[in-house]
Amino acid sequence: MTDRFPVAILGASGYVGAELLRLVLEHPRLEIAALGAKRRAGTPPEDLFPRFRGRDLPVFVDIDAFDAAGCALVFCCLPHGTTQETVARIAPVARVVDTSADFRLRDLDSYAEWYGAPHKAAHLQLQAVYGLTEHARDAMREASVIACPGCYPTSALLPLLPVLSAGLIDPEPIVIDAKSGVSGAGRSLREDLLFGEVSEGIRAYGLGGHRHTPEIEQELARVTGTETRVTFVPHLVPMNRGILTSVYVQARAGATAGDLQACLEDAYSDEIFVQVLPPGSAPATREVRGSNQAHLGVATGRGGQAILLCALDNLLKGAAGQAMQNANVVLGLPEDTGLASSAFAP
Amino acid sequence: MTDRFPVAILGASGYVGAELLRLVLEHPRLEIAALGAKRRAGTPPEDLFPRFRGRDLPVFVDIDAFDAAGCALVFCCLPHGTTQETVARIAPVARVVDTSADFRLRDLDSYAEWYGAPHKAAHLQLQAVYGLTEHARDAMREASVIACPGCYPTSALLPLLPVLSAGLIDPEPIVIDAKSGVSGAGRSLREDLLFGEVSEGIRAYGLGGHRHTPEIEQELARVTGTETRVTFVPHLVPMNRGILTSVYVQARAGATAGDLQACLEDAYSDEIFVQVLPPGSAPATREVRGSNQAHLGVATGRGGQAILLCALDNLLKGAAGQAMQNANVVLGLPEDTGLASSAFAP
Amino acid sequence: MTDRFPVAILGASGYVGAELLRLVLEHPRLEIAALGAKRRAGTPPEDLFPRFRGRDLPVFVDIDAFDAAGCALVFCCLPHGTTQETVARIAPVARVVDTSADFRLRDLDSYAEWYGAPHKAAHLQLQAVYGLTEHARDAMREASVIACPGCYPTSALLPLLPVLSAGLIDPEPIVIDAKSGVSGAGRSLREDLLFGEVSEGIRAYGLGGHRHTPEIEQELARVTGTETRVTFVPHLVPMNRGILTSVYVQARAGATAGDLQACLEDAYSDEIFVQVLPPGSAPATREVRGSNQAHLGVATGRGGQAILLCALDNLLKGAAGQAMQNANVVLGLPEDTGLASSAFAP
Amino acid sequence: MTDRFPVAILGASGYVGAELLRLVLEHPRLEIAALGAKRRAGTPPEDLFPRFRGRDLPVFVDIDAFDAAGCALVFCCLPHGTTQETVARIAPVARVVDTSADFRLRDLDSYAEWYGAPHKAAHLQLQAVYGLTEHARDAMREASVIACPGCYPTSALLPLLPVLSAGLIDPEPIVIDAKSGVSGAGRSLREDLLFGEVSEGIRAYGLGGHRHTPEIEQELARVTGTETRVTFVPHLVPMNRGILTSVYVQARAGATAGDLQACLEDAYSDEIFVQVLPPGSAPATREVRGSNQAHLGVATGRGGQAILLCALDNLLKGAAGQAMQNANVVLGLPEDTGLASSAFAP
Repeated sequence: MTDRFPVAILGASGYVGAELLRLVLEHPRLEIAALGAKRRAGTPPEDLFPRFRGRDLPVFVDIDAFDAAGCALVFCCLPHGTTQETVARIAPVARVVDTSADFRLRDLDSYAEWYGAPHKAAHLQLQAVYGLTEHARDAMREASVIACPGCYPTSALLPLLPVLSAGLIDPEPIVIDAKSGVSGAGRSLREDLLFGEVSEGIRAYGLGGHRHTPEIEQELARVTGTETRVTFVPHLVPMNRGILTSVYVQARAGATAGDLQACLEDAYSDEIFVQVLPPGSAPATREVRGSNQAHLGVATGRGGQAILLCALDNLLKGAAGQAMQNANVVLGLPEDTGLASSAFAP
Repeated sequence: MTDRFPVAILGASGYVGAELLRLVLEHPRLEIAALGAKRRAGTPPEDLFPRFRGRDLPVFVDIDAFDAAGCALVFCCLPHGTTQETVARIAPVARVVDTSADFRLRDLDSYAEWYGAPHKAAHLQLQAVYGLTEHARDAMREASVIACPGCYPTSALLPLLPVLSAGLIDPEPIVIDAKSGVSGAGRSLREDLLFGEVSEGIRAYGLGGHRHTPEIEQELARVTGTETRVTFVPHLVPMNRGILTSVYVQARAGATAGDLQACLEDAYSDEIFVQVLPPGSAPATREVRGSNQAHLGVATGRGGQAILLCALDNLLKGAAGQAMQNANVVLGLPEDTGLASSAFAP
Repeated sequence: MTDRFPVAILGASGYVGAELLRLVLEHPRLEIAALGAKRRAGTPPEDLFPRFRGRDLPVFVDIDAFDAAGCALVFCCLPHGTTQETVARIAPVARVVDTSADFRLRDLDSYAEWYGAPHKAAHLQLQAVYGLTEHARDAMREASVIACPGCYPTSALLPLLPVLSAGLIDPEPIVIDAKSGVSGAGRSLREDLLFGEVSEGIRAYGLGGHRHTPEIEQELARVTGTETRVTFVPHLVPMNRGILTSVYVQARAGATAGDLQACLEDAYSDEIFVQVLPPGSAPATREVRGSNQAHLGVATGRGGQAILLCALDNLLKGAAGQAMQNANVVLGLPEDTGLASSAFAP
Repeated sequence: MTDRFPVAILGASGYVGAELLRLVLEHPRLEIAALGAKRRAGTPPEDLFPRFRGRDLPVFVDIDAFDAAGCALVFCCLPHGTTQETVARIAPVARVVDTSADFRLRDLDSYAEWYGAPHKAAHLQLQAVYGLTEHARDAMREASVIACPGCYPTSALLPLLPVLSAGLIDPEPIVIDAKSGVSGAGRSLREDLLFGEVSEGIRAYGLGGHRHTPEIEQELARVTGTETRVTFVPHLVPMNRGILTSVYVQARAGATAGDLQACLEDAYSDEIFVQVLPPGSAPATREVRGSNQAHLGVATGRGGQAILLCALDNLLKGAAGQAMQNANVVLGLPEDTGLASSAFAP
């Protein structure tokens, strides 16, 4: 069809890549030009994913052999640390929407510190736009590389940015207690991700410092204008999809939960993918699972504290969905093109 | 939009009804005219289902107050035993696609026996078409009432009808061992459906005779031309969606699993929503969850037995999806309109 | 056997009561004298719980008909609001270990406010001992009524009491973000507890103020000597058992996570049922599920914050297990009698 | 303690081995002499399993370095194919209770065919007793090697052996449709066992022939006196523990489900660990989870068929529990010593 943009997905055998593949197949203006998957090169996608039988998809190609010529846009869904040279090779040829962490941190030293190796495409890092769509869409339109935010940062920043920007809360202390389903860890072959080790239990992890901390602090500092530290603790929940993030903040003298509610309602009143629930409502991940929606809630704590809650689907608004939303921005399409699904329940 | 057919959904607060609502919202040629829900009349749908916030839906109306005038088609998703008078009232005004059991059994005595009360709309029962789409689409085009098959019967009949019709298996014994997720029981307030009673366990139920037995036997008898009995045992699996049905049959002398495989491939080669997997493949419910697909598999047993397997999403191909497929037939649309989603994973 | 204490369990058909029944059956020094269950009176326990077949248990008796004469101790596991008159009737006859909330709040006005009705056994309330075993065993030895702590309060108080008592943290702000499995809500017939509504999702609840808040604040105030407010937010996790509580505190000037770790290790070094994990370890509910253990962990936050974590089995250390531990204290038995099971995994 | 038998567990880091460790710690007459774990040699058990903190356990030793001298009995829980030389080394020194498949098949050719390599301890194979306790306790008392049955065979043989032996059913066709939790596959690092690949789905596997087939057929042939073939299809259920096996048989002329029921009740009337539920009852894995019980049920099918059902905990009656029951037999202790736990619920 002549009115479809050809796109490629690199890392199409992982959870985020396969979710993007599903989204592209439902998108009325995109078509698959190529699917890249390192270990699976040469395999027809339906051998790995019987769910795509009858879809007439191209076999997976090796990432290194992938040629971006002819692609309007490339979704890069590779593990962090592996994308820099690939993106550097593609960026001059096609727009790149990257879901890894590789282009999110503007401070190259911070990147090296948290990810354990110097950045190999520093020039691109400086051009890359941090693609939290609702707060970055203008900057993204001309960018060659869009660094999609992490799932946890998306869930923390959506409620925090407006109230912090409006001066309604203290910049410290901010406690971010986040609970995620297992797919956030990808399809990694790790013993602690086996069904027998995950189901019927919950645990915290990353207590020594999770890599999403500097990303969250970087974006908060853009609003506060100074270093802003957060205590961020992720937890693993026995479910496939969904993040529920509970943020505990100190309201500025005089500010009430009602003020925070009004601030968020105002900030997101025109947004398709952010819903501010009525006061006191508790967002539930099940109500956003399978959709690109983020649900926000506000409640009153004790002693001047306020609670901000955000629920989203980590594979959609937290990864592939936001990537597609960003692709729509980049390609000049309405943001919800191919993303209009309501949540999938039960 | 003038090119959309107005449709109503009765029973829109249940699992099947809400799933149809989700499907209608993604369908390019339908629009919601009314939503009926007995206990929830007067409630905006987003109060019950926050996932539909921003969708601008009409408030639920009482089933008895619902007026079908102006509707091209009405999806009736009410509990069995409650639909007969409602459907009788609507059928002269609008086409009805019914997901209950009320119009599935042609034998009115059998209905009374299995459902505990005489049928209240006998004249309609005789006109109703049993809507197993792949085997009934021609009969449905002019029908005023489509009785969508039960989830278990759909999963048993899709593999059985072709091979029985071709004389490749004995009509008896047929063992149907079916495993279903919890949503098949609807959103019923029953202690045995509590999370604490379902998770981390599996159990058989309906050992004294499940109501889907006569429905399966009725449709098999159409092919064999005589009474055909099946031993059908359903099991409850700790998951939300999905049915996996394992059917154990005796191959007729000389017939091999390969013959059954070829027969099924031939029967469904032109079907969009039935995939016959390669020989020996085991269908998995996760590969069809969220899609309208049925995946079939064939394997060899011992002593001349063969195994037919079918996986489908009980709320889609087993209920709302097949209802929509049937609505597309009734309305003269391509069968997969609004139903093209791939399975949702993980 | 003459060396066994006869005990009764009231509310034996609920999750906590049935768990106590299981524990009593494994206890070498107790024997069942009676089982009370309001709605199930007259039923043999194995009809409700096939797992107790062959155990030769007495049929359930009505709570009102229950006579405590001859019982050394009565476990009362009834819903809050229903125990006061029952306990008042039994207390003069037999020691009572109560797992409801009815005797936990010393302030009768606070009870009336949070539970919606005046207390009907005020005299007993004043005598009742709040049975957080590790902090109350001496007071319990002679008490006629032991009010076992709630599951959430147990998980918050075990890590907080020692460090607050030692002056290592500020009394405010304290944020308690708790995650619980579904059994904490009991076997209530509520739509939001259906498998189809709980699995594959997480949500916060009780945002307007959960009834465990005053209980936590009451016990903290005993240590601080003044009103001490906490922001407490519970979350419902798709699992049967387990609570993981993450407590965020501000360390007093100079105090480090290492100091908190040392304080907890010192406080609980002689305890059988409290394990302080090595620094930086993340407690996991799966490692305590099925046991009476609480696992504590300490980690460093940003900006002077510290994180205290506690994992326990809400039906054991959070309810029936702690009740049995208290019964052992009351009866002069070693605290771990009948409670030595290791966690049950996977 | 002088009256405890010292025992060792080899393979103590796997699911079955760790379950045996838990059982030994609750057993009043056994004590741990050594724990063997190949990959984990040198590690304290509590580093791998925090649940065993405070238990004062010996560090894991390498299997090859393990010396059985001084052990009354050795539980061998290693993967099949790896035990033959180990068991051959130990058997002259200590009684061996083996939970692998290595000593179950009396026909050495069949072993080689199904397990892909010739047997390396043929002399022991011929002496080994197949330890389905209720049907083998006399033979076990003097045996040097007890080969504990597989989890699936246990669940199929318990209901089948008595009715086949009594001539109440035809020896063919027998269909065994079994559903198992994930722990049956052990703690293997396989992509298809990840939480994200198992939860919310069910699938059949082993369609080409599961290794438990020859084991079931071997034991049935002992009763029928001739080759007896079964169609056995296992399914993977999203839960940790439990097997529910539905067996479909043809009743011999004149025999009813009532006859089968009476036969099973008679066969197991004196057994502690086999409960025959009332007619028409559906066994549920949750009612046996955490216990060494097997629950049997009988129901009537159509066309002369009968349905036999069995629920058990695959890690207990299907593995570690039956191993302990056998150890009690071997050591001359009451069979339920240390095994009296009721099922763990929810």
